[in-house]
Amino acid sequence: MIKAGIIGATGYTGVELLRLLALHPEVELAVVTSRELAGTAVASRYPNLRGHVDLNYSSPDIKALADCDVVFYATPHAVAMNTAAELLATGTRIIDLSADFRIKDIALWERWYKTEHACPKLVEEAVYGLPEVNREAIAGARLIAVPGCYPTAVQLGFLPLLEQGLVDSGRLIADAKSGVSGAGRKAAEAYLLTEATESIKAYGVAGHRHLPEISQGLSRAAGEAVKLTFIPHLTPMIRGILATLYAPVKSGTQVTAARLQSIFEDRYANEPFVDVLPAGELPATRDVKGSNNCEISVAYNEDTDTVIVIAAEDNLVKGASGQAVQNMNIMFGFEERAGLNVVALMP
Amino acid sequence: MIKAGIIGATGYTGVELLRLLALHPEVELAVVTSRELAGTAVASRYPNLRGHVDLNYSSPDIKALADCDVVFYATPHAVAMNTAAELLATGTRIIDLSADFRIKDIALWERWYKTEHACPKLVEEAVYGLPEVNREAIAGARLIAVPGCYPTAVQLGFLPLLEQGLVDSGRLIADAKSGVSGAGRKAAEAYLLTEATESIKAYGVAGHRHLPEISQGLSRAAGEAVKLTFIPHLTPMIRGILATLYAPVKSGTQVTAARLQSIFEDRYANEPFVDVLPAGELPATRDVKGSNNCEISVAYNEDTDTVIVIAAEDNLVKGASGQAVQNMNIMFGFEERAGLNVVALMP
Amino acid sequence: MIKAGIIGATGYTGVELLRLLALHPEVELAVVTSRELAGTAVASRYPNLRGHVDLNYSSPDIKALADCDVVFYATPHAVAMNTAAELLATGTRIIDLSADFRIKDIALWERWYKTEHACPKLVEEAVYGLPEVNREAIAGARLIAVPGCYPTAVQLGFLPLLEQGLVDSGRLIADAKSGVSGAGRKAAEAYLLTEATESIKAYGVAGHRHLPEISQGLSRAAGEAVKLTFIPHLTPMIRGILATLYAPVKSGTQVTAARLQSIFEDRYANEPFVDVLPAGELPATRDVKGSNNCEISVAYNEDTDTVIVIAAEDNLVKGASGQAVQNMNIMFGFEERAGLNVVALMP
Amino acid sequence: MIKAGIIGATGYTGVELLRLLALHPEVELAVVTSRELAGTAVASRYPNLRGHVDLNYSSPDIKALADCDVVFYATPHAVAMNTAAELLATGTRIIDLSADFRIKDIALWERWYKTEHACPKLVEEAVYGLPEVNREAIAGARLIAVPGCYPTAVQLGFLPLLEQGLVDSGRLIADAKSGVSGAGRKAAEAYLLTEATESIKAYGVAGHRHLPEISQGLSRAAGEAVKLTFIPHLTPMIRGILATLYAPVKSGTQVTAARLQSIFEDRYANEPFVDVLPAGELPATRDVKGSNNCEISVAYNEDTDTVIVIAAEDNLVKGASGQAVQNMNIMFGFEERAGLNVVALMP
Repeated sequence: MIKAGIIGATGYTGVELLRLLALHPEVELAVVTSRELAGTAVASRYPNLRGHVDLNYSSPDIKALADCDVVFYATPHAVAMNTAAELLATGTRIIDLSADFRIKDIALWERWYKTEHACPKLVEEAVYGLPEVNREAIAGARLIAVPGCYPTAVQLGFLPLLEQGLVDSGRLIADAKSGVSGAGRKAAEAYLLTEATESIKAYGVAGHRHLPEISQGLSRAAGEAVKLTFIPHLTPMIRGILATLYAPVKSGTQVTAARLQSIFEDRYANEPFVDVLPAGELPATRDVKGSNNCEISVAYNEDTDTVIVIAAEDNLVKGASGQAVQNMNIMFGFEERAGLNVVALMP
Repeated sequence: MIKAGIIGATGYTGVELLRLLALHPEVELAVVTSRELAGTAVASRYPNLRGHVDLNYSSPDIKALADCDVVFYATPHAVAMNTAAELLATGTRIIDLSADFRIKDIALWERWYKTEHACPKLVEEAVYGLPEVNREAIAGARLIAVPGCYPTAVQLGFLPLLEQGLVDSGRLIADAKSGVSGAGRKAAEAYLLTEATESIKAYGVAGHRHLPEISQGLSRAAGEAVKLTFIPHLTPMIRGILATLYAPVKSGTQVTAARLQSIFEDRYANEPFVDVLPAGELPATRDVKGSNNCEISVAYNEDTDTVIVIAAEDNLVKGASGQAVQNMNIMFGFEERAGLNVVALMP
Repeated sequence: MIKAGIIGATGYTGVELLRLLALHPEVELAVVTSRELAGTAVASRYPNLRGHVDLNYSSPDIKALADCDVVFYATPHAVAMNTAAELLATGTRIIDLSADFRIKDIALWERWYKTEHACPKLVEEAVYGLPEVNREAIAGARLIAVPGCYPTAVQLGFLPLLEQGLVDSGRLIADAKSGVSGAGRKAAEAYLLTEATESIKAYGVAGHRHLPEISQGLSRAAGEAVKLTFIPHLTPMIRGILATLYAPVKSGTQVTAARLQSIFEDRYANEPFVDVLPAGELPATRDVKGSNNCEISVAYNEDTDTVIVIAAEDNLVKGASGQAVQNMNIMFGFEERAGLNVVALMP
Repeated sequence: MIKAGIIGATGYTGVELLRLLALHPEVELAVVTSRELAGTAVASRYPNLRGHVDLNYSSPDIKALADCDVVFYATPHAVAMNTAAELLATGTRIIDLSADFRIKDIALWERWYKTEHACPKLVEEAVYGLPEVNREAIAGARLIAVPGCYPTAVQLGFLPLLEQGLVDSGRLIADAKSGVSGAGRKAAEAYLLTEATESIKAYGVAGHRHLPEISQGLSRAAGEAVKLTFIPHLTPMIRGILATLYAPVKSGTQVTAARLQSIFEDRYANEPFVDVLPAGELPATRDVKGSNNCEISVAYNEDTDTVIVIAAEDNLVKGASGQAVQNMNIMFGFEERAGLNVVALMP
């Protein structure tokens, strides 16, 4: 049993971490912090935790957190970077669900997040927590930057194509659809039921903060700078991301549906949480609701010589808190599925 | 480990049983039958089970089922009554999620279900599987009739009032709201998304099959014939039942909110799956989505001298498959929470 | 053609007024005010009005408003009471959609709205704008208090029973279900899609501001003080109220379903916007989505000697802005259906 | 006033036609046919029409239909082709909402619809009813093939780019999201609320019947064979199509956002139902719910040299019945907005 703490567990990645950790066989939940809610019961903020989590919120306190083997930051960006170094110095390992340590290019990060980075040194050390790419580095890491929700689905979908050099990396397209929980649990008019249900729309067409993170990962996989058009859409549902990916086949390269299928199956054969569907089947976000799975289909359009990849995940699980727990399992040598052996809720 | 079988697992109570049993620490899933789907993978019917359930459907076969320690019927009504006796004779215990063995008065059952009952003898033997009332009898039962979804919420809400004789049993009202999954997984125009979302309506005003089941249970608790107006409503959501119950205080009886609160808390103090909320808090169906909990609030309207009870459950869990598993746990001496220690999905 | 103004058109009753008035054959939309949005286009706040409404918001200005024949207040409570007298003095007639002039008992209003009333004198003059009760008074009124959304449905449902003295007015029950738009267009966590969809819950069990308004109307109809248990529910949909009403038949009175049906049909025979459904049919809120209709069913439960009335309306139309326009039509002698001849959107 | 008939008005395009025609100032609704529902009231099938449409369904009868000036086919494919010639011969004009007369290449049609075409001669004569392309031909037509829902949005979005020869017509991508009403009002498990809500998925990846229709229209506009990857998605909402379109800029061509914006504004400057949004604004499907508008945004991604067009429409209005009425208005010389001057319902 290890002791775990969570900083800032008042939003949706927080409750999802708590849901998973409360039943995790190797974890004792020791500290849950929130400045505003200090003293109140965690279960009063999240009624689904009644009977499962008995803790009260406490004010963030480095000493109490230092007692934990691992601390999760479930905070907005530009929080973790201010205290991570101090906490690491106590020997506690950190899993940061925010964007603070995801992007290696500090200037790029500062441009997109419109803030000076308080701790560039740790950015260098931080391991990008995508197990399907960095499993070994994760095992030895002190500090994990958990990937964003869109970046997880988009990277898992494009990786096999880029690693094999099959597609033209200059004109990739990711048309992504996300449930409203991606916007967090903050009172904003745009995410009211009355505004967001029974409607779909694109946003961030002029630029979205997940783009540099995705590009960094895809470029690493491709071994060259990748260019991507990334259009996210606000979709009238609570959870789920569906990423529909389009990649033109590289000039002079020949692909077939069968070859693509076996490339994807081989790539993810040993991955516990990536599930390549049988040829011809397509994922729906509901198939992974509440689970840590990413389901992927690949298809080939001969007429336009384009590869289509469709990836579905639960944005709060594989796209955030489940992936954070998966990272923790790897870091501490637990079974990688521990605490994540959940069947998606259907219907 | 016991061996379990499921008959007719093609609908929503079936998939919910499979979700719970697949991860149950004491159960090996041995047989899943469906006449139409025999030979196909269970996980192709229920994609959320990919990686969790590897079985194929088989044709119902008494020999294969007799090999199981327990068999669940997840069939429509008027199926279990035809084969239950034969299966019981092999020593297998039965948990029937359908209505076949719920109502002790055969003539009444036949009137509501418009079918001759094939096995009245077993009706007498069957134990009504509401653990909060019949825990001891369940432990020794060969045959369990799992309560219906509405009857579970309505009975749990009214029981403390009737057992204490506080309310006028001649004019009870149950205004119940159910998600669309209560209608099952059958293609019917009325339950299309386009017909059922963004709208609420009452149905069954002239009479609903759950009424005699509820009346039977309430009358037993009251020790006299209870009269109930029961109006169910189709609510635009997948899961959940909210039962808003109204009971006039018996003439000459004095109640207070505090006394009601403590009556409810005492009644359910040792119940693992009934959660009486603190005074002033109200349940929402989402607080129990995917969990076996029934959350209950009680309030008193002094002006009209009426008690208001509000009970929330997941119709597919405490209202069906979770309760079936709870019954199994009691029958086989497992920890009552085994396999049911699930945190509701939120948001 | 008359000139109309709207004060405070930034929420949902505002946009609904604009939708109806923009196409009204007798109305020219002259002024739309909002302190915060002064100078911006109305259609940028409400994109559905692009091409239909070309006005910009202006700051509230009595002179500009005095130029209008009628001014609608689409403001929160405690706004209209501050300026209505001044505006009336200019000869402009007022239709107030807020609660300021609905309740005749000033002390009662002040208790529920926790504010001192700024203009008790006008409360006396104001006509309660329920055309099915006050049509004649509306025609001559200078100041209309448009009924609340719940009060409209609940009163229309109970009126025939109370007017005929058929039911026990001491223990009426109104179990009402409202879409989320009833909470207005304000950023509040509880009404986020992620919080409000896929769930139903009761609220206001300890008391809701619409209760005194309903009681006032029902008591007037009954000719005696009516006692009502009123439990509203937040329902996962945008629009619509379904009120399920329960009334015990008065001791010594005999009713039949047929008699109830004809009482309701007779009561509303000449009402353009109340539609009593054929016996046995039940309303759904979607049947009135976007229309000014209130659909009503009545049923009788012999076993419990209880009358059940079910009323469906669109809370933003018959429950607010449509009813406001209906009042305007009556006040100015227009055809009562003018601008309200809308077919509900289905599906 | 002209007389109109509708054949097969039992689904969603039928009710939408009736909603629009019932209030159309120039149309008298004379005949509504349905073989199965002959004799029953139209308003019992579509409760939103109570009080607006008093007709009963009748069996299809050429004589009665011949009495109409115009007849709409709201039938599945392969129905209109069997009787259109006979009806045209009586002098009645036809507006077919099905696919029977949309595709000029008979062999192509037969391949996609897996049926022999019963009336190839009329395919030649039929005018494709996209007013933004064929207004003049529509005015003189006897037989209109109303475009499909996806084809309308996708064509309106791509047309300006192709007409100007700005983009590489060999690798266009249309990622389209449709509400569930696109599947019609037929009882099918996949479209149950429990299956379709709270989830998004792609379908028809291997080929969708709307592809040849779209390609035909785009190729005509481009003056060369266009190649398109078309991926539709089932989106958890009732109404609306959002088409997100991606077009690589033709090699050697230079575009800017400003130039694209003015090309789109110029192209649709005189179109009553195509609304090019101001630069930087993006459409949501809810902005056109119930209206005949198609809202379009255009953006340019410099990094990938790709044009992104986003088009939103209501699939049942501009994507079907509204467009049919627009065609009728043009054919009979009515004001083109007659009966279509509807403000979208918001929220």
